[in-house]
Order: sequence, then structure tokens, then C-alpha cells
Amino acid sequence: MTSHRIGILGTGLIGNFYAQTLRRGRSRDEVAVVYSRTAERAREFAERFQIATWTTDLEEATSHPAIDTVVVALPNDLHLPAVKLAATAGKAVLVTKPLARTATEAREILRIVEEAGIFAGYLEDLCYTPKTLRALEYVEQGTLGDVLWVRSRETHPGPHSAWFWDPRRAGAGAIVDLGCHCIEIIRSFVGKHVRPIEALCWADTLVHPIDAEDNAVGLIRFENGALGQFEVSWTFRGGMDLRDEVAGTEGTIWLNHFLRTGFEMFTSEANSSYVAEKAEVERGWLFPVGDEIGELGYVDMFDDMFAALDAGRQPRETVYDGYIVNAIIDACLASARNHRWETINLEWRGGQSHRIERRHQNVGDLILVKQERLPDGRQKLILKDPRTGDFLDRIV
Amino acid sequence: MTSHRIGILGTGLIGNFYAQTLRRGRSRDEVAVVYSRTAERAREFAERFQIATWTTDLEEATSHPAIDTVVVALPNDLHLPAVKLAATAGKAVLVTKPLARTATEAREILRIVEEAGIFAGYLEDLCYTPKTLRALEYVEQGTLGDVLWVRSRETHPGPHSAWFWDPRRAGAGAIVDLGCHCIEIIRSFVGKHVRPIEALCWADTLVHPIDAEDNAVGLIRFENGALGQFEVSWTFRGGMDLRDEVAGTEGTIWLNHFLRTGFEMFTSEANSSYVAEKAEVERGWLFPVGDEIGELGYVDMFDDMFAALDAGRQPRETVYDGYIVNAIIDACLASARNHRWETINLEWRGGQSHRIERRHQNVGDLILVKQERLPDGRQKLILKDPRTGDFLDRIV
Amino acid sequence: MTSHRIGILGTGLIGNFYAQTLRRGRSRDEVAVVYSRTAERAREFAERFQIATWTTDLEEATSHPAIDTVVVALPNDLHLPAVKLAATAGKAVLVTKPLARTATEAREILRIVEEAGIFAGYLEDLCYTPKTLRALEYVEQGTLGDVLWVRSRETHPGPHSAWFWDPRRAGAGAIVDLGCHCIEIIRSFVGKHVRPIEALCWADTLVHPIDAEDNAVGLIRFENGALGQFEVSWTFRGGMDLRDEVAGTEGTIWLNHFLRTGFEMFTSEANSSYVAEKAEVERGWLFPVGDEIGELGYVDMFDDMFAALDAGRQPRETVYDGYIVNAIIDACLASARNHRWETINLEWRGGQSHRIERRHQNVGDLILVKQERLPDGRQKLILKDPRTGDFLDRIV
Amino acid sequence: MTSHRIGILGTGLIGNFYAQTLRRGRSRDEVAVVYSRTAERAREFAERFQIATWTTDLEEATSHPAIDTVVVALPNDLHLPAVKLAATAGKAVLVTKPLARTATEAREILRIVEEAGIFAGYLEDLCYTPKTLRALEYVEQGTLGDVLWVRSRETHPGPHSAWFWDPRRAGAGAIVDLGCHCIEIIRSFVGKHVRPIEALCWADTLVHPIDAEDNAVGLIRFENGALGQFEVSWTFRGGMDLRDEVAGTEGTIWLNHFLRTGFEMFTSEANSSYVAEKAEVERGWLFPVGDEIGELGYVDMFDDMFAALDAGRQPRETVYDGYIVNAIIDACLASARNHRWETINLEWRGGQSHRIERRHQNVGDLILVKQERLPDGRQKLILKDPRTGDFLDRIV
Repeated sequence: MTSHRIGILGTGLIGNFYAQTLRRGRSRDEVAVVYSRTAERAREFAERFQIATWTTDLEEATSHPAIDTVVVALPNDLHLPAVKLAATAGKAVLVTKPLARTATEAREILRIVEEAGIFAGYLEDLCYTPKTLRALEYVEQGTLGDVLWVRSRETHPGPHSAWFWDPRRAGAGAIVDLGCHCIEIIRSFVGKHVRPIEALCWADTLVHPIDAEDNAVGLIRFENGALGQFEVSWTFRGGMDLRDEVAGTEGTIWLNHFLRTGFEMFTSEANSSYVAEKAEVERGWLFPVGDEIGELGYVDMFDDMFAALDAGRQPRETVYDGYIVNAIIDACLASARNHRWETINLEWRGGQSHRIERRHQNVGDLILVKQERLPDGRQKLILKDPRTGDFLDRIV
Repeated sequence: MTSHRIGILGTGLIGNFYAQTLRRGRSRDEVAVVYSRTAERAREFAERFQIATWTTDLEEATSHPAIDTVVVALPNDLHLPAVKLAATAGKAVLVTKPLARTATEAREILRIVEEAGIFAGYLEDLCYTPKTLRALEYVEQGTLGDVLWVRSRETHPGPHSAWFWDPRRAGAGAIVDLGCHCIEIIRSFVGKHVRPIEALCWADTLVHPIDAEDNAVGLIRFENGALGQFEVSWTFRGGMDLRDEVAGTEGTIWLNHFLRTGFEMFTSEANSSYVAEKAEVERGWLFPVGDEIGELGYVDMFDDMFAALDAGRQPRETVYDGYIVNAIIDACLASARNHRWETINLEWRGGQSHRIERRHQNVGDLILVKQERLPDGRQKLILKDPRTGDFLDRIV
Repeated sequence: MTSHRIGILGTGLIGNFYAQTLRRGRSRDEVAVVYSRTAERAREFAERFQIATWTTDLEEATSHPAIDTVVVALPNDLHLPAVKLAATAGKAVLVTKPLARTATEAREILRIVEEAGIFAGYLEDLCYTPKTLRALEYVEQGTLGDVLWVRSRETHPGPHSAWFWDPRRAGAGAIVDLGCHCIEIIRSFVGKHVRPIEALCWADTLVHPIDAEDNAVGLIRFENGALGQFEVSWTFRGGMDLRDEVAGTEGTIWLNHFLRTGFEMFTSEANSSYVAEKAEVERGWLFPVGDEIGELGYVDMFDDMFAALDAGRQPRETVYDGYIVNAIIDACLASARNHRWETINLEWRGGQSHRIERRHQNVGDLILVKQERLPDGRQKLILKDPRTGDFLDRIV
Repeated sequence: MTSHRIGILGTGLIGNFYAQTLRRGRSRDEVAVVYSRTAERAREFAERFQIATWTTDLEEATSHPAIDTVVVALPNDLHLPAVKLAATAGKAVLVTKPLARTATEAREILRIVEEAGIFAGYLEDLCYTPKTLRALEYVEQGTLGDVLWVRSRETHPGPHSAWFWDPRRAGAGAIVDLGCHCIEIIRSFVGKHVRPIEALCWADTLVHPIDAEDNAVGLIRFENGALGQFEVSWTFRGGMDLRDEVAGTEGTIWLNHFLRTGFEMFTSEANSSYVAEKAEVERGWLFPVGDEIGELGYVDMFDDMFAALDAGRQPRETVYDGYIVNAIIDACLASARNHRWETINLEWRGGQSHRIERRHQNVGDLILVKQERLPDGRQKLILKDPRTGDFLDRIV
């Protein structure tokens, strides 16, 4: 196992989460350089995390000889220029989510890293939460049968930095900020080999004095018949609501990542300490998480990234995945604008997938639709006559 | 308080729930007549619930002198003829959900009861669950601020009688069977005075060997900007999932009516007894409800119906409400067919409602977008410059 | 079914709950008389619940010709005198919990009602919650096998009326106020035919400036080997915590009656309305119950009482049960005082019960202790050699 | 940060958990030696975890030059001899829980490591779960006020290896196996500086054909008035139940570590894969944990151990803590045998702690007992007259 020396670009909330993750535990990796646009923030960050070098020069940061890997934790409009510089310097590059503001930009990032031949990863932490990883194992081994429907929901009262609210910098509003997570979670459960075909999205600006959408619901139709559904909001009250639901032909999974994880606390004291990301209150019933960094997936994400880099394999979340997410977001934004289903335009590298198959079982000439046990122990069959289309009950 | 004598039409699952409800507790009302198409079922039902008269003649049942109220618990295609007979006989009439197969049929039922001048009610039990009634009180007194979004979900492994599966008799599949509940729950939380404008629906037949949809997701846009969202399925695994979520500008409500209500049981024994409606398993972890009749709203529903009848007022759920639900369902079915948003066509009796208002607060020349307390106790403001559209952070 | 005319003695919280229950729904029963020590409260109560007669004369109230049933909702020290008067007047009498301050007093109440030959019931609402009734059905039909252990917990921040805090009037503190519920819940799950043998109790006054205990934990040993465990507190923060847990040889039941029942609400608004009994906060995350009267068991309790009265049978909760509870409380109080296990002294009317039987299965000459499936599908047996006392693992 | 080379003694379930933990992530530490009594198990374990050296010679394992740290994951009766060898070899030594079979043995282990001057840690993983660590931070900063009561519960259907069932090797039954966790969790929340004074324990063998207790409930009184309560069982049905509850003067914490952590799954398929430790079923509703190793505290535990070793400080869980736990267990076993409260005999190194203080506030000459807001907005005071002992209500 190789050790890595990392440069972090950006000192906002996400940069902090990344630095905390990379520094913790018994890790052999180390953050060696940090970049921020302002010297004060760069210096303060370097001190907090004991980072040897800080700079306000992006090119210096990306090409610094002390590092082999660049972590891009910048606002969305700066991902493309940062990746360009890192690729030029031949560094491995890990980019925060969303990959870019648009599919076009994302495609360009994909082209750059592929042409440069550098290792690249997509830092989609919520696809790496311990619960998600475990749930995906179950799904992959067939515990749920065929996945039919996935709901992914991320809502909170709104982001914490100015640039998120400016669609020129962020690309759009809650759909880009939160939908990027939901879409990749949906893809992970449906199966990344299944092509997303079209999207329908409702979006509105209901509460905040902004132009970008603060609420949206999207539907994504996949080639095999499965449906993905995301709900995002910057106006949710009560903290950060992170839930996923998966329905399959043989089973169901419900994940709650944040507000109901088996940690419940009541306090009458104004709570001087940090409760959790986007927590709204400091008294009454609170729902902290045990280990925020761990439960949000940051630990497993970086473990996978560096293990992949060492092994010369692709990480679980690739820059190509990030590009697909941006393509779906673009279709959602177009759908919200045009008020209709929109085809998802993308360069698809996966193959084709078959339609989820309906089940058939015959009872004589009739089709068995459903079978259930009655309270008295007998079986009730619901049968369909394929010639007439009539349905009948039969107790056996 | 007057006592009532009731005739029940239909002896299926819902007829059983109604009879259990009307007979229980210290009620002063009584079921005096029951009708079924088959003599055996009518007789057996009459014995089970100690009902004096049973018949297989619908006209006899609806006009029987021993009763003042007719409860229609028949398959959807028989609601209209049954209401006609009851209206002719001048009886009060209570119709199970959905009111009819189509908005046209529902409108005809509405016309009949209004022209006959009889008392009529819409037996939408899930709008009467104790949790829903309590939650609606909170919403009505402003605890949640303006309601922005409502999710209502009803899914289970599929209905228990043959006629549900036949769209010629039922009207459609899961959208009619389960969506009727969800839509009226959504209307109740958004406010019944708010006009539903258009609907978008995805529907598919993914699992069962039938023509009707077994899965659907619908979006309903309301005049004031609120969004309703329903999810229905006949392929859900794990029991009957009945959940509602309401998001408002000042608060959130989450209701779970069935699978997680504070009653958790594990058993290694094959459980010979009834667990709950649509429960799928008899061993392992089970989630019964304490009082199914009560928690599903049947008790409060009939209390309201007879109290309204006695008081000469409208019940909470009227036949007009049932008609609105059918109109929304029709738009959803058209949307699923036509793959686009569809206008909801209806004769609207409510007035107009205003758009939910966005919030404004100024800090000097700037618009305050968000305010949050930092861990160190200082306030962080996110501000928008209305001239440039730029956003900025300010720590105060 | 007969109608009943009821006199309520007492206008405190519990009197209000009773009157609300007796008045609601389509009930054929009616509250005709109310008694309070102060005219103002009596009059106000009578107006609120539209009761024809109010009085401050206890004898007048208990013997009033307009009533056939007396409901005792008075402080604990007044139960005995009130029952005496009701018995003299020949009325049916229903007494709130606890039955009395001591087993001696309770035994006297039992004697009075038995000698008078009147119908008498013990108003232990928490043994009638819909969840408890349903859970008891499961237990009675063997879903849990033999019941080994029951935990019943009731804690809140302290009672709402002065007399509760005065041990001269109440009998003791939290043990009497809350423990009476827990003990009877425990008896219901263990089986009322199983004799309670001895009790151990820790009690302390940790927070409030009072003499009575504000915290206690008790253990009750039953003849068959089962253990009951109660936890009561007047210092709990977060609302009213009402939970029961039952462990059997074949299963487990967990009931949550109040704070987590599938109703979750967040509000940023100061909530002007009543949330729930003993709720502590009005903002943030709140956990109302849908129908407090129903979920706390009041409805099913009075239904059973009057049905029993009509049928000439004993109700589920009898005055004898109330006496047993007081006997157990007395042993707990002695145990807390004497710092040791105390025998429960009582006149036991049930029979004897056998010790819960241990399970045996032999594998050759060895005793099978446990069997579990390994991840690779093989079975692992843990075996005991009865001659040597040695244990060994065997994979089969 | 130094890297460590570790020898693991023992290849059972706990040895596996330890090896998985030490190998995972980006850790700089490495397992270099493994010992088992049988060559087959040692070899198989070494292969599974890619460990260079395996041996069946305990002395070779503890003194191997390739390692600096010995991890004792052996049955309870082998802890003392293993520690002796490791101390002689001058290795750092980390001992699994419980520290020993008795307080005498534990005291001897403490003496040995202290005299040898080696670094030693107590591998009490459940005091290191992310939830526990976070909860302890809240408690330490006063979020709950004074801690009054702690409940810790660990129950499952019984252990997986023969030696656990043999009290000669294990020390006792469920009290030693599971109670050791609960007791140290209780100490952590009450405060390790608070002396445990006496213990009361009920224990019985209700189900299994063994001599050791399979069910027990214990109470621990602390010097400051706080009460600890543990519940352990080898007969619980439904999986592994790991819950803690903490009640303080200002707040409440409820932790659920295993069966309800926001991961809920239903499957109709027999599930071929591992669900979770002690899971009992493979179909129906299952409750996996996301990351078992992480959520059970193994990761944070070893991080702390090696960080402490590097820093020359004591770890959070010391061998002295393990000794205190054994002393409390001994008192519990004596209490169960002698059927009375037993003093906890120990060499106490902490100081004295003050009694939790009761709260006082006066209103004129009266003592304020409780204050609550009435539905109409007025305040209700419950007051005590210190001269007469009378209590009165006052509305203000």
C-alpha cells in the first residue's frame, strides 16, 4: 500500500470534511498543500489541519512537487479549470460533486482526464455511506429481486455559502446541489449498466428570494422499466433529511442516513455544541449522528479512491459517472423549463438492458395473478382468463 | 343524538370493516340489512354481524323500510346504480372510495344525490385516521406555515378480490385503487379550497400479468404553487406501506399509519393469527397495529358521517370531494397515456387561491437569503445584491 | 345493550379524560352528575361537558337518582370514602388507579364492593391501550412462547396537581403514581394467574424538593420464574415516556405508546396548541399522538366496563386486580426502605403456576445447547457433556 | 505517527473482528503474527488475513520479534497467562473484554502490566461506538445536566462458541459475557470518577440446559446517587439488542446500536448472505447495520489504543477500568447468590464525588416544586409549604 500526498483546493465546508477525513484514524496519507482564494482562509485552514504549505495560487497548488493527488473542493464553476491544471501537472485528480455545472462541461473534464491518462475519481460521498454500500451488496446478490423503483431524497433549509445560491456559478439551484447525490444513488441501486432514458422534473422557487429553484421533484425512466424519483429542497424544516427507498420484486430497503439513525436526544439546555450538518435547533429533541464523517461516506470514499489508485483500477465512482449525472440534471432542468418529459442526451458507454420481466404462472388455462392465505388457513387464488380478460377468485 | 338503521351493500373486505366499525363500542347505530350478490355470502355476513335481514335484491336492500341510511361497499362499477336506487328511496347514502370509475360517473352521482336532496357522504377513511385528523388541526392553525409539498404513499402486494384487477370494473389499476386515498390526503393538507391545476403521472405494469398499471407515481400542481405527490404500487414487499409527509414553510409532518407505529414484534412461531391487512409474513419481525379499525380511520369516519347527518351539515368528506378525486385520477390516467402534463378538468366550486408568498427581508440595500449561527456563536448572513444578482457571505 | 347514566367524582385531569371519553363518538351512555370540592370547578366542568347536575356534596353525587354508575376520579385518599358512599347507594362503581394508598385500604374497598354486591371496576387505562390489548392477544395465543421478562416504563417531568406530591394524600411518590400502571401491565403480560412472590425496589429523591421518591426502579419475581421490571420517574426530560417490552422464549414485543408512534412533527413556530400530555416543548421536533384518548386506552376501558356491567361479567380490570397492585407497591416501598427483597403479602385468589420449563434436546449422549447456521451454510452445534460439564463445538 | 506490528492471540469471532479492523482502510499498522491452539485454525486465519506468521505456541506468539503489540482475543481463562507472557516479553498488550473471570484475576493482570511498565489497554469496543463517543461528548459538556440513571441492555439468543457456556472457563454466564459491556457503558455515562458503591442483581437460568445464568438484571448504586441498570440475556429473540438510555436533570439520550439504526430491509428470498452478528432470520423484515465493524466501535477503539501508545498517554479504556468492571460483576454474582444488595469491593483510585444536588427555588415563603404552562397560556405553579408539608396549586 502506497502513501499519498494530497493537495486540497478549497477551504469551505466540503474542504473541511475532506481534510478531517484524510487526517483521521491511522491513515498513511497526508494533506501537504491547501489552496484558497484568500490568504487568511488558506493560512487558517493549514493551521487547523497542520498542513505544511498553503497558497492562493491555483497553479502552484495543482503542480506542487510535494503532492501526487489533487482534491478539487471548489465551487462548481472552478472544477473545469482546476482539473485542467491538475491534468497538465500529471497529478491524480479527485473532483467533488457535482462534477460540473453542465453536461458539456462535465464531458470536457472527462476528455481532459482521459487524454492526460491520469487517475481520476468522482467524490460522490453519499454513494459510499456504510449503509449504502451494504444495501448495494444486498441488491447485487439479488436479495430484492429486480429493482423497480428508487426514491432518493435530500432536503435541508438551504446551503451555507453564497456561491450555491448563484446559478451562474452553481449551474442551477437545489437540483444541482442536492439532486446530483440523489441521481447517482438512484443509478447505483437500479444498476449503473442500465441506461437512463428520459426525465421529468417539476421545479419551483417557493420560499427564498432567489432565481434558482428551491424545490424540485424529478422522475427518471430507465431502459429496463425501472423508475427513479428524487426530491430535493432548500426549504425543508427540521434538519437535513437524507433518505433512500428501494422497491424490488422480492424486497424493500429503507435507509435513513441522518435524522433517524438510532440516536435520539432531548435537552432543555441551549446546546452550545455542533449537533449535525444543517441541524436547525439546539433544544428539545435532537437527532445527532454518531460519526458524521463516517456516516456520510467520506471515509469509505477516500479509502476506495486511494485503493483504486494503488491498484490501477477504476474507483466505484468515476468521472464518467459524474458526467452521466450532469447529463441527467440537464434533462431535468430542460424538463422543468419546457414542462414535458425530456430525453436524456449522453454518450452511453454501457450496453443495453432488458425490460424487467413480468411473472407468469398458470393454473390450468388460467393465469395466476395472486395467491394469499386466508385467516382460516385456506389459499385464495386470484385468476385471470386470458381469453376473456375476466378475473375470478378461487378458494382452494 | 339520533340512532340510525343502516343497510350495507357488499360483503367484501370493506363491507366487513364497515360492519365491524358500526357494531363496535357503545354505538347507538345498528346495521339492519345486508345485501350481497350471492345468498351464501349475504347469509354468512348477516350471521357474523347479527344483522336481521339479508337479501340478494339490490332494490329491496336500498329501499328497505327498516333502514334510513345506505352504505355502498360494492365494486366501483356498481356505485352509480346503487346510489340511484338509494336516492330514489330517499335514503341517506354513504359511498365507499373511489366514488366512481371516472369523473363523468362521479359527476352523475353528485347530480343524483343533490337533486334528490338526500344526505350523502364519501367514505374516504384515510382522511379520518386519528393521526391525519390531528395533523390537519396543526396545519390549519398554522404550525407548518404554508404547505409547500405533500407526499402520500400507499403500496402493498396487490388487492384481495378479483374485480380490483379488472380495469373494466375498477376503472384502472393501482391509481384508482390506492391513488384515490393519496389524492384526497394531499388535498386535505394543501387545503381543499386550493384548486388542483394539472397532473403528471408515470404508470407501468412491471410485475403482474395484467393490463392495468401495478405501479404509478403522480404529481399534482395546485393553483397556489404547492405540489402533491403520490406513489402507489401493487408490487410492494413487506406489508402495507401507508405514509404521508407534509413540508411547510415553518414545519414538517411525517405520518406512518401502518408499518411503524410503535408496535414491534418478533416471533419464531408460525403465527396462526391475523397480523394486519396485507401483512406478508407470519414469522420474524412483524409490525401489527394496535387497533386496525381505529387507526385506519373507520371509527372517526362513521362518527362524523352520522353526526353530520344529525346536525344537517356536510360531513368532512363529501360526494363533491369524491368527484374532484375522480377528476384528478382521470387527468393522471391521461397523463400516463399521453406522456405529458394534463390539465385537470373539473367543475370547481371553490374560489381562487393566491400564490404562496416568498419571504423578503432587507439588510441595507441587500436581500437577506439565509441566516445561520456559526459554531463560534457569530451569525453568518447570505445576502443577495438585487442589482447585480451577486451573492455574498457576511459574518456579523 | 343498556344505556348508562354516570356520575363523575372529581374534575382534575383524569376527570376530564373520563368525561371526554364518555361523551365522544356515538355512545349511548351519558354523564349526568359531576362532583367537585369547589363549586366553581364543578360548574365549569358541567358546562364544558354539558352535564345536567353539578354538586359539591359527595353524598348527593354518589346517591343521585339520575345515575346508575359512579366514576371515582378523586385524589387517592378519597377513594375509600367515595366507594363507601357509592356502595351504600347501590351504584355500580368504577375507581381510578391506583385503587388506594395502601394494600390495607385497597383490601377494604374490595370488601365493601363485594359485600354490597355491586358491580365494580378498576380504571387502569394503560392495560386497555389498543396496542396492549392486541399484544395480549398475541401473548395469549402463544406467539411469544413463555413470557420470561417484562419491562414497563412510565416517566415524565412530574404530575400536574399539588396532591400528587404529598405522600400523605397520594400514599407515596412516583411508585404509586406511575408504578401502579407498570405493575398491572407487567401482571397482564406475565399472566394474572401467576402469583407475584417478592419485590426489590430502589427509590430516591434526586431532583425535586419533596419527601416522596421522584425516581424508582422495581423488580418483581413471579412464582413461575418470570421477572417484571418497572422504571418510574418524575424527572424525565422530553415528554411522557410510556414503553413496554416483553421477552418470551419464542418472541419479543416492544410497545411505544406515546413518544414514537409514527407521528413526527417539526415546527419553528411557537405552537399555541396542546401537543400531548406532559409534552415539554412547543418548538422543534414534537411527537404528538393521533388520538390521545384512544391510544391511552380510555375508550376501550369504558367500553369493557359497561359491556361487563350489561353482561353481568367481571371487567378485564377488577378491584381485586387493584388490590394486588397495591400489595405489590407496598412491598416495593418496604424494599426501598429496608434495602432488601421483600415478600409480597396478599390474599391470593389465583392458583399455583409451574416453573417455566427449560428446553432439552439430545444429540447422542450430549445435550444440545445451541444450533446456528454458519455463513457457509453448515450447522454449528454447541453441545454439553452432562457427565463432565464440558462444552464443545461441533460443525455438521 | 508510528506504525505498529501486532500479534493476535485467538482466532474466534472476536479475533476475526479485530483482524478485520486492523487490516482495513488506509491503516499504517499490520498484523504480523497469529496464535491459535490448533494449527488448522491458525493457518486458515493467517491466510484469510494475509498474516506472515502463525503459531500454536503461545510463548512464541507473545515474544515474537516481528511484533511490538499483543492483542489478547482468547477465552477468559487464558487472559492472565497471556498477559503474563506478553509482559515478560515487554510487549504492549491489549486485552479483550471482560478483563478476567474475577476481580482477583483482574487485579493480578493490573499488577503485572503496571509492574512491567508496559502499555496496556482494555478492548471494550462498545464504549467506543461512534454513537457512544458522541453521546459522551454531549454528557461531558453538560447537555443532559446531572446524569441520574443509565440503562444499558445487551441481549441475544446466546453465544457462538462452547467455552462461553462453561462458567469454569468464562467466570459466569450472561453477566460476564454481556454485563461487562453494560457496566462499563454505565460507568462512562455516570462518570468514571464516581465510585460504584453497591450492586443488586437478579439472575436465573430460564431456558438453556446450562448451569450459568442466561438472564440477569442488575442495579448499581453510585456514590453521587446515580443508578445504573443493566439487562442481559442469552434468550432474547430477534437478533442482538444493544440499547442504552441516559436520563439527566436536563435531558435524555437514547442509543440503539444494532436493530434500529435507520436500515430496514424486507426480503421474500432466503438470504444467503450474512445479515449481522446474532441475526436470527433470513427472510421477512431484517435490520442490518451499515458497517458492523465501525458501529460496534472496533475502529475507534484501535485508533485510540495506538494513538495512546504513540503519545505515551492512557487510552480511554484502561486495564484499571477492566478491573473495576470485574469488581462490579463479582458483587452482582454475589448479590444474585445471596439475594441481597452487596457492597462493591475494590481498590478505588478515583476520589470522592458529591451527591447530585436537588433544586430549590422559592416563591415567597413557599418552595416551587413545578411550573407548567396551561393551554390558556397562564402558568400553573405547584408549591410546597415547608412548615406544614402541604402542597398547593397556584395559577398566575
